[in-house]
Amino acid sequence: MFSEKFSPRFSDTDALGHINNTLVPIWFEGARKPVFELFVPDLDPNKWNLILANIEVAFKAQMYFGFDMEVKTFISHIGNSSFKVYQELWQQEKCCATGTATMVHFDYQAQKPTVIPEQIKQMLTAHIR
Amino acid sequence: MFSEKFSPRFSDTDALGHINNTLVPIWFEGARKPVFELFVPDLDPNKWNLILANIEVAFKAQMYFGFDMEVKTFISHIGNSSFKVYQELWQQEKCCATGTATMVHFDYQAQKPTVIPEQIKQMLTAHIR
Amino acid sequence: MFSEKFSPRFSDTDALGHINNTLVPIWFEGARKPVFELFVPDLDPNKWNLILANIEVAFKAQMYFGFDMEVKTFISHIGNSSFKVYQELWQQEKCCATGTATMVHFDYQAQKPTVIPEQIKQMLTAHIR
Amino acid sequence: MFSEKFSPRFSDTDALGHINNTLVPIWFEGARKPVFELFVPDLDPNKWNLILANIEVAFKAQMYFGFDMEVKTFISHIGNSSFKVYQELWQQEKCCATGTATMVHFDYQAQKPTVIPEQIKQMLTAHIR
Repeated sequence: MFSEKFSPRFSDTDALGHINNTLVPIWFEGARKPVFELFVPDLDPNKWNLILANIEVAFKAQMYFGFDMEVKTFISHIGNSSFKVYQELWQQEKCCATGTATMVHFDYQAQKPTVIPEQIKQMLTAHIR
Repeated sequence: MFSEKFSPRFSDTDALGHINNTLVPIWFEGARKPVFELFVPDLDPNKWNLILANIEVAFKAQMYFGFDMEVKTFISHIGNSSFKVYQELWQQEKCCATGTATMVHFDYQAQKPTVIPEQIKQMLTAHIR
Repeated sequence: MFSEKFSPRFSDTDALGHINNTLVPIWFEGARKPVFELFVPDLDPNKWNLILANIEVAFKAQMYFGFDMEVKTFISHIGNSSFKVYQELWQQEKCCATGTATMVHFDYQAQKPTVIPEQIKQMLTAHIR
Repeated sequence: MFSEKFSPRFSDTDALGHINNTLVPIWFEGARKPVFELFVPDLDPNKWNLILANIEVAFKAQMYFGFDMEVKTFISHIGNSSFKVYQELWQQEKCCATGTATMVHFDYQAQKPTVIPEQIKQMLTAHIR
């Protein structure tokens, strides 16, 4: 499991007085950084080999400015060339949102999926939930 | 069907040279404005009666800065107190992303779902796909 | 003068019920697209030759969700290798914010400013205010 | 001086491969949170008593994904009802951007500036640069 803690910003709120829902996919992508590093250790965009296929987010509770947040990031499925990242967003000891991102190991030059190397599969396995 | 056309901004791109995926949920929420207006005609946040339960987005093709975009918005399901909005994001005659948002008619005072009024159901029906 | 019209999104509001101030630099950069096109006609990032040196924004009136916005973009100064873009943000017939961006014609390879070609200077002059 | 450290997100980059400039005003506003707390200790938007009058940002060096950032926040001027916040954005031991925000102690009910209480002035003074 990877964990990222941060404080929401005032600009993350909306006119309903809560955190706006569009921040959640942004925060979830941000918290996938350690997953990206398994595939691109120096995070150089020129060596990027991942593409996002789809995301699902379930909104469970309202979130507020002024309280710290934590994103917990797990691997929930490892396929041949794709894998799933399951994430939870916590605030004040409540799970406020969950999400799953399906990512594909991708060859940008050839513009097609490629098999995930065995060594990376093993590193992903360490974060399975 | 509701349609919204706009040009992406340079700040919407990322280091891979494409539009960053986190913009898509933002654009889809933006294009649900005419749906919001069926529930809150003057869009006054103090009268807001909708809450987002979940979203799913499938990314189908890379999108680029410098070409116009269109979001097409349909209603795909009408339940008792909830409904689904299905959306497509088009650029250069290609459907680049699709999404479904499940929204709930919500009483913020009582903090619980409420039945969608018959009159609004009829208006939603006009946009069924 | 260049003009861009658009509708703010619900996600652009903040907990004070207005448009959040951080959107204004984003909208101003978005509305500089026709200026970018004078320097990079096909907007290809690999041919980019502009860099932003600084911005100033004055906030004059609160802006609201549900009302259309217009950004008016002018050139306010043309130097040797730099120039200034002056912009106004209007909503409901009120000028809500003004801004000036100082941009530099820049050689990314050499990492240094370069003189603005005479032909581009003439095109900029057409938008002087 | 207040300090905030964080990691930029992949979605903060743009097609030039750097952090996009529009993030800087967002990060600077985020890092003013401890200043907001001097005026609104529990950060409740209903008690908000600050308004942003203007911002200036100077961009000095390119910033990259994959390296931590620090925002250093100082008070640079204390007036009767307004004050200035001076901020620096650091990455890899380089000051990449500086900014000044002029904020006004504001009565939202009456819609006009009000004098900064002596007690808050003293707290601001502790962060003068």
